[in-house]
Amino acid sequence: MPKQKTISVALIGAAGYSGAELLRLLMNHPGVAVQAVTSRTHLGKPVSSVHPHLRGSTSLEFVDPERLHWKDFDLVFFATPSGVAMRHIPAVLKAHARVIDVSADFRLRDAKEWAHWYNEEHLAPQLLSEAVYGMPEFHAERVASARLVANAGCYPTAILLALLPLLSAQCVNPETLRVSAVSGLSGAGRQTKEAYMLTEAHASVNAYAASGHRHLPEMLQQLRAFAANACLEFVPHLAPMSRGIHATVFADLSAGVVASKALEVLNKHYQQAPFVDVMAMGDYPRSGDVCGSNMCRLAIHPSSEDGRIIILSVIDNLLKGAAGLALENMNLMFGWPQTLGLPVSGTRP
Amino acid sequence: MPKQKTISVALIGAAGYSGAELLRLLMNHPGVAVQAVTSRTHLGKPVSSVHPHLRGSTSLEFVDPERLHWKDFDLVFFATPSGVAMRHIPAVLKAHARVIDVSADFRLRDAKEWAHWYNEEHLAPQLLSEAVYGMPEFHAERVASARLVANAGCYPTAILLALLPLLSAQCVNPETLRVSAVSGLSGAGRQTKEAYMLTEAHASVNAYAASGHRHLPEMLQQLRAFAANACLEFVPHLAPMSRGIHATVFADLSAGVVASKALEVLNKHYQQAPFVDVMAMGDYPRSGDVCGSNMCRLAIHPSSEDGRIIILSVIDNLLKGAAGLALENMNLMFGWPQTLGLPVSGTRP
Amino acid sequence: MPKQKTISVALIGAAGYSGAELLRLLMNHPGVAVQAVTSRTHLGKPVSSVHPHLRGSTSLEFVDPERLHWKDFDLVFFATPSGVAMRHIPAVLKAHARVIDVSADFRLRDAKEWAHWYNEEHLAPQLLSEAVYGMPEFHAERVASARLVANAGCYPTAILLALLPLLSAQCVNPETLRVSAVSGLSGAGRQTKEAYMLTEAHASVNAYAASGHRHLPEMLQQLRAFAANACLEFVPHLAPMSRGIHATVFADLSAGVVASKALEVLNKHYQQAPFVDVMAMGDYPRSGDVCGSNMCRLAIHPSSEDGRIIILSVIDNLLKGAAGLALENMNLMFGWPQTLGLPVSGTRP
Amino acid sequence: MPKQKTISVALIGAAGYSGAELLRLLMNHPGVAVQAVTSRTHLGKPVSSVHPHLRGSTSLEFVDPERLHWKDFDLVFFATPSGVAMRHIPAVLKAHARVIDVSADFRLRDAKEWAHWYNEEHLAPQLLSEAVYGMPEFHAERVASARLVANAGCYPTAILLALLPLLSAQCVNPETLRVSAVSGLSGAGRQTKEAYMLTEAHASVNAYAASGHRHLPEMLQQLRAFAANACLEFVPHLAPMSRGIHATVFADLSAGVVASKALEVLNKHYQQAPFVDVMAMGDYPRSGDVCGSNMCRLAIHPSSEDGRIIILSVIDNLLKGAAGLALENMNLMFGWPQTLGLPVSGTRP
Repeated sequence: MPKQKTISVALIGAAGYSGAELLRLLMNHPGVAVQAVTSRTHLGKPVSSVHPHLRGSTSLEFVDPERLHWKDFDLVFFATPSGVAMRHIPAVLKAHARVIDVSADFRLRDAKEWAHWYNEEHLAPQLLSEAVYGMPEFHAERVASARLVANAGCYPTAILLALLPLLSAQCVNPETLRVSAVSGLSGAGRQTKEAYMLTEAHASVNAYAASGHRHLPEMLQQLRAFAANACLEFVPHLAPMSRGIHATVFADLSAGVVASKALEVLNKHYQQAPFVDVMAMGDYPRSGDVCGSNMCRLAIHPSSEDGRIIILSVIDNLLKGAAGLALENMNLMFGWPQTLGLPVSGTRP
Repeated sequence: MPKQKTISVALIGAAGYSGAELLRLLMNHPGVAVQAVTSRTHLGKPVSSVHPHLRGSTSLEFVDPERLHWKDFDLVFFATPSGVAMRHIPAVLKAHARVIDVSADFRLRDAKEWAHWYNEEHLAPQLLSEAVYGMPEFHAERVASARLVANAGCYPTAILLALLPLLSAQCVNPETLRVSAVSGLSGAGRQTKEAYMLTEAHASVNAYAASGHRHLPEMLQQLRAFAANACLEFVPHLAPMSRGIHATVFADLSAGVVASKALEVLNKHYQQAPFVDVMAMGDYPRSGDVCGSNMCRLAIHPSSEDGRIIILSVIDNLLKGAAGLALENMNLMFGWPQTLGLPVSGTRP
Repeated sequence: MPKQKTISVALIGAAGYSGAELLRLLMNHPGVAVQAVTSRTHLGKPVSSVHPHLRGSTSLEFVDPERLHWKDFDLVFFATPSGVAMRHIPAVLKAHARVIDVSADFRLRDAKEWAHWYNEEHLAPQLLSEAVYGMPEFHAERVASARLVANAGCYPTAILLALLPLLSAQCVNPETLRVSAVSGLSGAGRQTKEAYMLTEAHASVNAYAASGHRHLPEMLQQLRAFAANACLEFVPHLAPMSRGIHATVFADLSAGVVASKALEVLNKHYQQAPFVDVMAMGDYPRSGDVCGSNMCRLAIHPSSEDGRIIILSVIDNLLKGAAGLALENMNLMFGWPQTLGLPVSGTRP
Repeated sequence: MPKQKTISVALIGAAGYSGAELLRLLMNHPGVAVQAVTSRTHLGKPVSSVHPHLRGSTSLEFVDPERLHWKDFDLVFFATPSGVAMRHIPAVLKAHARVIDVSADFRLRDAKEWAHWYNEEHLAPQLLSEAVYGMPEFHAERVASARLVANAGCYPTAILLALLPLLSAQCVNPETLRVSAVSGLSGAGRQTKEAYMLTEAHASVNAYAASGHRHLPEMLQQLRAFAANACLEFVPHLAPMSRGIHATVFADLSAGVVASKALEVLNKHYQQAPFVDVMAMGDYPRSGDVCGSNMCRLAIHPSSEDGRIIILSVIDNLLKGAAGLALENMNLMFGWPQTLGLPVSGTRP
């Protein structure tokens, strides 16, 4: 591997799970020097006291984001709760640093819709149209040259990778899309809510946000770029595990299309994609097998009902669904191989 | 409580999880004397050596089913693998004992369809039309007088309780039914397959039998009794827990029907049902909350798409989905209160 | 079963896990009418909204403990955090109600020691010598006539049941006692601490309070009643499960005593004990097998080192270690059979 | 990093969990070309069909070990069940390949003792004295020049790293060592035994091999190299997780030694050790925090009893306890940095 130019990176909001995972990946990336990690809650504490699995890997301490000079950085990651990144990003861009926003602040193009789903006014609506949706399998070129990348959400990554090529090739009827997805609890972030305690969440499955999860408008926006009449029902669930998303997608095939044709379309679309693994017809991806990896695995099944298919998709929500994807986007932005510093194998058992 | 007449009961196939659970319930039922439990694999062993959680509760030993005299029993339960019960039941009935078959041998009315799904000829096709589908919420009277009850399957229980009243009241379009369901691993029985080891199954979710689970024809048969054109897509999944089923049902409302009307129908249908708990609109049942209980919990959500609903249903697959349901059916058959000997509360956390 | 006299019961502090489990048992006990359950946090809410697994079992609502008239009750349970029960119990006793304190307020006989371990002055030191340590296997008669029972702690129950008969029979050297115990997270109560979130606690084991857990002085007090020179090292751990305690006790045998003699002592001591199951030499109790049951299981192993043994003990911390034990004590206090309303079988898998 | 000389490696017995983990690490190691992986059970199958988490990482297929030419390899790893490696290793060494045996065949120096614990005659006793115990923190130089390295066992790694420096410095009394350790189920290997099914092993803890685990003589041999009179009681347990070992060590301090002195000894001994992390007095390592990493974490606690300490030690049994350790040994043998290709951070949550 040729010697990498080293870029200077700041990671804003590194106290959560996506932030920790991003830091872990960045520390092992040969082209990156992490110069600053921030957390207001943990100001002044060693990172390893908040993320004990990183003891011995880093001597960084959390600093105050207000005291950073954005011009010191080539790239700034935001792994902050909704509504934080949009307060800082205009200044970051003005200082000529580039941005990958792992939060949801720049994923919707419409400020009104954003305000509706996130319950506050968007503070940087002028950047919404510039922000590039960070999904390398569809927007690699635009990501490469972007100033501001809006990293795709975790559920959207799993579901859109299953659906977009099929919509694009008009294999499925866009009005028939229904998704039931299951996530581990790390998807809920590092919030100490009662429902997320082991005693409450173990040995149980439940749906949530059945009538409208915040990832729904994000998915509809992307789906409608390929099929204006796309409809989507989306029911997310929590299962007693920490990592991993398993999405089960129901779709009616377009007239005259058979399941094997749909599989062919996926295979062709992802032939060069290093992080999408299209399995054989009728295979069953297990979410656990991609945990620890940046891979998305897809499989198609003919339904018991003629003219319909079921698509199964699995990812590690903290890697391909957050931090790993962010690194992929960074690799594209700085001209590195897309896979640099990213794990392909999962870590099982 | 008035003194119960005690009935003499045999439990055939008590080495598995449903059998153990049934035995536990029967031992605590005031009207039952368990006279024999059988297992060919464990012949002669104390039950408690095979089911260590029952140590101290029972001194029964496994006997050989071939050595039983069916006329000694008022009631014989079968908790055997598919294809076993049908070999014995004709003789049991001839001896004037009644039967509750917890296995799948008598759930389908059509012998050819049974042969298709279970890969062998049915050996007692003459009894298929007599067998009563053991779902008290719909067939209580027929169960009460039945000689042979075919206990409903676990997924069918969760899913049919959600759908049948709505189909019956023509609230939903029978051609639009899609179900994604998640089960704990006890649903797979006590098989030592690699995929069911903790190391393989922990921290992972996967679909299985997406194109046709054996419970599909069972559900279609019941659905079509209410709506001849009913279609059903059914994708079951395994999640890293032992007990519990969570079913997520997608359905289009019939023209002019709204979600609140559907909820009203469920509430009305289950007003007197001791083991169906219809929650408020938009509530989220957790499968873990009904584990240890014989309750099914249902909730309706309006979909993000107009004119559609999502129905959530949870049960303990070993209780309401197997052994508890069998006891309910027994209570009906012998004139006891439907709830006798059955737990209403779950055991959490 | 003869008709039971019904007693009137209040349950103070019913929002936690022990409280919920106690309520579940009390509701199914034929001699008890639960007249009031309290929680200041959840004042006015239905119990089932805080304990969703109890939906359908109870229509009780949480009331304010300050508004109760203690004379209305035959028995008052406290399942409150440390330091609460001692504020109320003098008034309860004065009103001629009897008390079972599931919390730790009256387990130590010495007020100074209590103050040392619980970081506040004891407010009812005059009752410490009257309080009977609620461990039926050793104090059944005193419990039967007690006004105030201090329910034994969860770890102490598992560990003392293993050790007291051996100390009493001078089978083991009291200066050599070392215990490593593992508990599920329900033992930590219903506290929303970060360390107890599924994401933090899953897939991990850790020790805590290695130099001095609050249950240590409680155990020493009981051990020293049988052997004044008893020493105990006690290291508790958390494992990724909700319920269950597994205690591993190291002890040197007294001179001339062999392992089989120790086993004989246990067998003899617990011959009549309905909730202690002494297994054969070399058996391995599994904590999961007693979950859902009020049973303690014990097994002895000869050590690889001559003259030493290892004793294994398992309980369900919420049943035999808290709520089930409280019910046992109640049964003794009111002249009912010790097992009335208590589950003997565990609920597995 | 300077360009590495690439060595040719064979991995014998790659169907299990240690083998898979070793393969994953070797594939990412810059100095290694994995030329052959073997499994008789899976002959001819793609590795990724047996280890689905490796799909996309490798196109290797399992070959027959009998058809390999040992002289084609610089290094041969054995990750086979006990009793297999000793059949092959003499031939491997004769062909001038070096060997790292991850199995237990060459860990004991005494052939009779080996035969006692493994129930068969040792077939290569002449190599037992040559084999170097593969624990880099104590035998780095001998490992570097070894032809045959016997990789330390998982429990021994966790426990010996805690004890050897203290024995060596005469800080603890060697006759007082007692260990209670907890392992995830991957430690039991990829065996489809009923006890290892999720339904059986979830939500439960149990001890096993309390009177003598095979790792006991291995530990005693190493302990006695430092203190001839060392005694050890060792009780291993299974907890409901896949990876990770947590060991709790009880030891009496030598006369005049205090806990802080013991900590000082550990700190000094491991000052340069890249994979031993000595925590501050009273810290609590969590096994989950080192899962995915090659790190061992140690902490000392003063006991509640004067003159005694408790030492806590955690590792990932498949990394520092097996495959990671094997890679460390390889790095030493081939002159690479000890940390090359090895993860320092854990992967949480």
